[in-house]
Amino acid sequence: MIDSRFFKKPTPLSLEQICHHLGIVVPNEYDKNKQFESVAVLAAAGAQDVSCYNNAKYLEELKHTKAGLCLVTAEAAAHVPESTLCLIVDHPYRFFGKIAALFYPSSVNHQGISDLSFIHPTAKVGRNCVISAFAVIEADVVVADDCFIGPNCVIQKGTSLGNNCHLDAHVTVGCAIIGNHVYIKPGARIGQPGFGFHMDEKGHFDIPQLGRVIIGDHVHIGANTTIDRGSFADTVIGKGVRIDNLVQIAHNVEVGDNSVLVAQVGIAGSTKLGKFVIAAGQVGIAGHLKIGNGVKIAAQSGLMRDVADKETVAGSPAVPVRDWHKQTIALSRLIKNQK
Amino acid sequence: MIDSRFFKKPTPLSLEQICHHLGIVVPNEYDKNKQFESVAVLAAAGAQDVSCYNNAKYLEELKHTKAGLCLVTAEAAAHVPESTLCLIVDHPYRFFGKIAALFYPSSVNHQGISDLSFIHPTAKVGRNCVISAFAVIEADVVVADDCFIGPNCVIQKGTSLGNNCHLDAHVTVGCAIIGNHVYIKPGARIGQPGFGFHMDEKGHFDIPQLGRVIIGDHVHIGANTTIDRGSFADTVIGKGVRIDNLVQIAHNVEVGDNSVLVAQVGIAGSTKLGKFVIAAGQVGIAGHLKIGNGVKIAAQSGLMRDVADKETVAGSPAVPVRDWHKQTIALSRLIKNQK
Amino acid sequence: MIDSRFFKKPTPLSLEQICHHLGIVVPNEYDKNKQFESVAVLAAAGAQDVSCYNNAKYLEELKHTKAGLCLVTAEAAAHVPESTLCLIVDHPYRFFGKIAALFYPSSVNHQGISDLSFIHPTAKVGRNCVISAFAVIEADVVVADDCFIGPNCVIQKGTSLGNNCHLDAHVTVGCAIIGNHVYIKPGARIGQPGFGFHMDEKGHFDIPQLGRVIIGDHVHIGANTTIDRGSFADTVIGKGVRIDNLVQIAHNVEVGDNSVLVAQVGIAGSTKLGKFVIAAGQVGIAGHLKIGNGVKIAAQSGLMRDVADKETVAGSPAVPVRDWHKQTIALSRLIKNQK
Repeated sequence: MIDSRFFKKPTPLSLEQICHHLGIVVPNEYDKNKQFESVAVLAAAGAQDVSCYNNAKYLEELKHTKAGLCLVTAEAAAHVPESTLCLIVDHPYRFFGKIAALFYPSSVNHQGISDLSFIHPTAKVGRNCVISAFAVIEADVVVADDCFIGPNCVIQKGTSLGNNCHLDAHVTVGCAIIGNHVYIKPGARIGQPGFGFHMDEKGHFDIPQLGRVIIGDHVHIGANTTIDRGSFADTVIGKGVRIDNLVQIAHNVEVGDNSVLVAQVGIAGSTKLGKFVIAAGQVGIAGHLKIGNGVKIAAQSGLMRDVADKETVAGSPAVPVRDWHKQTIALSRLIKNQK
Repeated sequence: MIDSRFFKKPTPLSLEQICHHLGIVVPNEYDKNKQFESVAVLAAAGAQDVSCYNNAKYLEELKHTKAGLCLVTAEAAAHVPESTLCLIVDHPYRFFGKIAALFYPSSVNHQGISDLSFIHPTAKVGRNCVISAFAVIEADVVVADDCFIGPNCVIQKGTSLGNNCHLDAHVTVGCAIIGNHVYIKPGARIGQPGFGFHMDEKGHFDIPQLGRVIIGDHVHIGANTTIDRGSFADTVIGKGVRIDNLVQIAHNVEVGDNSVLVAQVGIAGSTKLGKFVIAAGQVGIAGHLKIGNGVKIAAQSGLMRDVADKETVAGSPAVPVRDWHKQTIALSRLIKNQK
Repeated sequence: MIDSRFFKKPTPLSLEQICHHLGIVVPNEYDKNKQFESVAVLAAAGAQDVSCYNNAKYLEELKHTKAGLCLVTAEAAAHVPESTLCLIVDHPYRFFGKIAALFYPSSVNHQGISDLSFIHPTAKVGRNCVISAFAVIEADVVVADDCFIGPNCVIQKGTSLGNNCHLDAHVTVGCAIIGNHVYIKPGARIGQPGFGFHMDEKGHFDIPQLGRVIIGDHVHIGANTTIDRGSFADTVIGKGVRIDNLVQIAHNVEVGDNSVLVAQVGIAGSTKLGKFVIAAGQVGIAGHLKIGNGVKIAAQSGLMRDVADKETVAGSPAVPVRDWHKQTIALSRLIKNQK
């Protein structure tokens, strides 16, 4: 089912190779030389495919799968059909991802530096980089080794990128210090001046935006997401952070390590998020707040106050999630007697 | 009022030509040779303009219009001023659009293939295409006939476009199979890897995103909208779908034929929408849901459950629209006795 | 703290120069020749820095600042440490911005017209403009004097720009008449056809979009924001308007002078906003509404009705802010006795 126009047809792998890659032993009763050709979801998988079960919504698909091999947790193993081999693991989806990446390693077109790009003479580009057509690398930019700069990207004056960064097409980056292994999807805008002005009866007076954007290692940034540079301090994205598409991050925001911001989240200026915060889709967070470590924020919530470590909040204005459920129930009761 | 710098001044049309185009007969009492020069809204129209009335908010404008000709429904006809000719039709706005398109046919600058574009030698470009300056057509891409590829577009490896596609400036498309007559507005991002990773205490493990985006015929996609490719399955946009600006469509989502997604809607992964679904502005839809045919979703709603065919829902979390109205009323009553 | 890779190290300024620029007198007890080197926020400032206090959240930082000079209001002056000079002004942040702009004047790289840009022979470009690499200036475009057109921008046929406009990278502008001193951040899309079609059981019939976008002087437009052109009338952005990132403005919308639209706001078609309207983040406004002068709209609100001058509204559906606070309190009381 995986289209070889986009992803190179993989070499088959034996059960032994797969198990070795996952660091598990081949169950005794299975033939370690059995070959598999690809990965597929339960409903689409055939005898040659590896699949996985990790969401109770798809239990029926598990029961009827034709997959040759399926990764499951111990509890689900009883539902795997007899014709499907079964590997029991703690985190089936993580392991499925590992197998998928073994079949389909991410590959970069080693086309080198395009004659159709523009690289300023003072810019430094490391070894083994791809600079694609119509990309612009401005003065004093530093691109380290093994980076991919997609077509029509613009890297503005003085910006630096670490090793193994991947910028998909049409990315703009400026006033930024970017770590290693950072992946930026198409159309992301990083480092433009923030929304900073003084407003009074005379109109708006613009405040110079003199900060930067600092991005840690292994960060992913979504398509058409916008991250403004700091005004006088920096905007900081901690290492391992995952940011989805169309997210807005205002000036001076700090996002702690490994936090996850789902699509269309907006964070107003100078707010600090702790580590491992999860903000679901379309969440809005007001400015100058402090959101603790491990906080979880339900989709579409609006945060107007600080949140302590490990709290889960929901609603607009956001309240503890238990209270939000109660509000929802109270509202539904309230209208029962109403005509 | 229509600015000839942007839209070529049209040739005048007679009432007979207009009626013939609409498939209706010229009313007996009217001069079939009367000429009209353009289209305009009620308040701006003069004797030389065709106008239309289709929204009760503009009844006063209808009563005072100076339009030469006006399209109305039978009920509204009594309000048309005496000096304005009047054509009674079932769908005035549809017919008005037809006349506007007759005066101002969409035209493409037949500039051919720009010397400043980059087309990979293995790419195939059909007859009568425009490839604009600084556009990039990567390896193995297929562009069928009569396509317009705007400036600075990037079409990534292996992607195919049907006939008569129009990509405005700065579009990115990859891992996609695109039908005929697809119109993509500037800055849309189609086919980037979705937001797919396994998250546990050790951090995030990225799941390869090995699916595609499949787009049916006659689809329109808005400016800066993002459509991720599938993870293991495909992301599918049915034929005739209309997607507005800044919409987020996650991996594996399916949108049924002729559905309408208004600006800033977000749909999480693996959710399936039926045909003729309407999601108003800023709606959020959670992942792995099934939304029936003909479902209508009020603006800013948040959907967390499946919705049956033809239901109308509103609120966050979304409930049947009648209940949402009741909730709104209940809340307003609740605060009446509160100081 | 300000990074000289991005912002040129400034020349030191004396207290006298600073006060002169602000139009205030040097307090008698201070040495008018004392030198300052830069600006910084309270917590980061040293003896060589000018700082400011304008948000009660940062009172502790004020009390412990090491800034050489601090701008404050009269009420806050008592909290300035002894070692810090203190200038009392009505609007500390406005004056701080003025000093920052004095140290760090906005500078444009006077690189002229890039050989790698494309300028149509019929386009007119004024004096002292920068046209960057891979920018496209189409037929009949007029760019007045002292404009900066960033890399990979596309200015479409017939569009005109006033003096001193700044288009950051990757901007698309078409069917637009743009005033003087307009600043457009990267990836903004201006002038594409709006979301206009007639929908009935036969499917969608597209209505030609024959209007323009008119943008007044001194407007700022955020990154990846989208502004559709009018359908038959124009979309109009009044002078001095500030628009943040990822905002959606539909066809025929009018935004009055000096209004402020924060990130991710969406305004549906034909709605008119008065002057000095403030819409906070993620606000949604339905179509065909009239929002008065000086209206303030709380974050995430959803407006479905006209709003009178100077009202403040909140909630979805939006109500007067006092009622919204009452609703929030009523809901929290309602669940107190609920288990």
